[in-house]
Amino acid sequence: MSERYEKGLKQLNELDSNAAEGLIESFRDICPDLAKYTIEYPFGDVLQREGLDFKTRELATIAALTALGNCQPQLKGHISGALNIGCTPKAITEVILQMSVYAGFPAAINGMTAAKEVFESRGIITEK
Amino acid sequence: MSERYEKGLKQLNELDSNAAEGLIESFRDICPDLAKYTIEYPFGDVLQREGLDFKTRELATIAALTALGNCQPQLKGHISGALNIGCTPKAITEVILQMSVYAGFPAAINGMTAAKEVFESRGIITEK
Amino acid sequence: MSERYEKGLKQLNELDSNAAEGLIESFRDICPDLAKYTIEYPFGDVLQREGLDFKTRELATIAALTALGNCQPQLKGHISGALNIGCTPKAITEVILQMSVYAGFPAAINGMTAAKEVFESRGIITEK
Amino acid sequence: MSERYEKGLKQLNELDSNAAEGLIESFRDICPDLAKYTIEYPFGDVLQREGLDFKTRELATIAALTALGNCQPQLKGHISGALNIGCTPKAITEVILQMSVYAGFPAAINGMTAAKEVFESRGIITEK
Amino acid sequence: MSERYEKGLKQLNELDSNAAEGLIESFRDICPDLAKYTIEYPFGDVLQREGLDFKTRELATIAALTALGNCQPQLKGHISGALNIGCTPKAITEVILQMSVYAGFPAAINGMTAAKEVFESRGIITEK
Amino acid sequence: MSERYEKGLKQLNELDSNAAEGLIESFRDICPDLAKYTIEYPFGDVLQREGLDFKTRELATIAALTALGNCQPQLKGHISGALNIGCTPKAITEVILQMSVYAGFPAAINGMTAAKEVFESRGIITEK
Repeated sequence: MSERYEKGLKQLNELDSNAAEGLIESFRDICPDLAKYTIEYPFGDVLQREGLDFKTRELATIAALTALGNCQPQLKGHISGALNIGCTPKAITEVILQMSVYAGFPAAINGMTAAKEVFESRGIITEK
Repeated sequence: MSERYEKGLKQLNELDSNAAEGLIESFRDICPDLAKYTIEYPFGDVLQREGLDFKTRELATIAALTALGNCQPQLKGHISGALNIGCTPKAITEVILQMSVYAGFPAAINGMTAAKEVFESRGIITEK
Repeated sequence: MSERYEKGLKQLNELDSNAAEGLIESFRDICPDLAKYTIEYPFGDVLQREGLDFKTRELATIAALTALGNCQPQLKGHISGALNIGCTPKAITEVILQMSVYAGFPAAINGMTAAKEVFESRGIITEK
Repeated sequence: MSERYEKGLKQLNELDSNAAEGLIESFRDICPDLAKYTIEYPFGDVLQREGLDFKTRELATIAALTALGNCQPQLKGHISGALNIGCTPKAITEVILQMSVYAGFPAAINGMTAAKEVFESRGIITEK
Repeated sequence: MSERYEKGLKQLNELDSNAAEGLIESFRDICPDLAKYTIEYPFGDVLQREGLDFKTRELATIAALTALGNCQPQLKGHISGALNIGCTPKAITEVILQMSVYAGFPAAINGMTAAKEVFESRGIITEK
Repeated sequence: MSERYEKGLKQLNELDSNAAEGLIESFRDICPDLAKYTIEYPFGDVLQREGLDFKTRELATIAALTALGNCQPQLKGHISGALNIGCTPKAITEVILQMSVYAGFPAAINGMTAAKEVFESRGIITEK
């Protein structure tokens, strides 16, 4: 276990204490290095760099994934992770709403629907 | 001139005091309402909402435009605008670097090249 | 309720008499302004402008959403709406088929699958 | 020369009488079949199908290329072609403006800039 | 039945002996020409060209569909087809993993998840 | 200099003996870690993995970058690199042509134009 891996694991655990295990388990039989690299590069190298706090980094990620619009599982994971590290629900919905400007209303609506599902599952808003 | 337009104009001027005039001039003869709507909706309605400060909004925009990778003029405009409202060069380059994770290395490299051009034109780094 | 909102609501109702209520209800507890803005800007400002009839606008929207390929719920909504305002099923399938040229065969196939589900739910073609 | 090729050539010539020669010349030494296929499939098979008139097809193409935002040469070619077959400048700018809703303001602004260049080169609006 | 169609059908059958029937059946009542064109152009014209073997072509397709990230059904179909024509599971997972570099980690993770589902359904790896 | 960096540098040099220096120089004053990470992760970790030869990896990259259509400098770099490691011009043009199927004709045409520029600069085809 490299130092990058250890650092990445700690950073990922901060975002979601179950994510690393899920990631490792998911690709264990098909490509374990995808889990290893995901822990090492994004979480070990990038997301813990100085110069930008972790909360702002998560909001930037939510912005990008909402705009790209083709990776809803990751978007939901990062919305949940952002809440775990102390981003307010309001900051998250504001970032998603803002994407109507840069990526169009369908992207914003689908991003907000992802947030709604996460917020409901955590009791932040009431499921109907 | 609606209240939304006036508010948007003020917000856009904060980002770049020449942008509104350029936008209006650019589309005057072909579709003036594109300039009007851009001032009203993004700048009048969205970017001045409460719940997220303007600096974080600009970093989210830089994240999204770097990830999308198909609107370099706007990316450069927002990098310049982010500097104008007080984002540090470091925060901007960190957001762009982070996009290597979510949109790949070519997107990050092209985003960083855009930042480099803006930083050079403002003397933040020295042109070679 | 602004004049833009009232105009937008009327335009959206023309497309789908249940859509506004669904949109408002969906985001009521998380971000009601996303519904408000969607009614005001796309439907109040843009889609009722002169210079292009509503049917051609809907076909243009179907073209774009098929090509982008990352917003199937909105694509299905606009296919259904296009039928409601009098676009023929043939015009819709021709636009989608045409996207094989500009966005590739997978995009066209996924767009046509969306159309198929809408057409079946309305009895235009028989579900199997 | 297949029947599809002959039909496609005629259709492409209707859009732009120089386009076929340019396309053929451009790829003669590297991949002549790309020109051949472009004439056969898009122009020979798809764009002359019944059920949707050529003008609406061009507007749908302009919508898609504006939304995708990564193929400006083709967008400009189709804006020019649309004018050649009788689309009004107004219909073209309306389609592009509409894309602010479905693909965001940067996409619409870059599409309008493409239209502006085409319109200026044809004297529809005055270059400054 | 044109010669292109016959050649395409044979090529598609090599990839997946049920695909053609599924494709034809799927669009029979809504747009049969989409199935016809898919057999003729991709399979009849392109994928059987000389200069690149079919296995490498399938790996290139898997690369592109993983990177685009908005056409999972086609990605899964091509992963399955690649296995049918003799691509190794390892070659497929390597191509998908490589897309983390060019399109980001979410794209690679979603592509690998698609591969996992295909591999499990074929008993290449054990479902849990 | 980590082992990953050293391995990556060697791999990148194989592709293009000037690329590393250009990359390092380009981002020296703005974000040197982007060059470092590009050498370490894509070239040190991914592109030299077993299970897929380097030539096929480059063709997969060319496929993805052609399909994405928003990173022409990198596409041209990889076309040039692919030639350096022994990919035939024909294999490269076939991969690009194939993308007309998966990402549409504009993407294929813009990819082929990139290849044409690279081939001309190397005298593979004659510039006109």
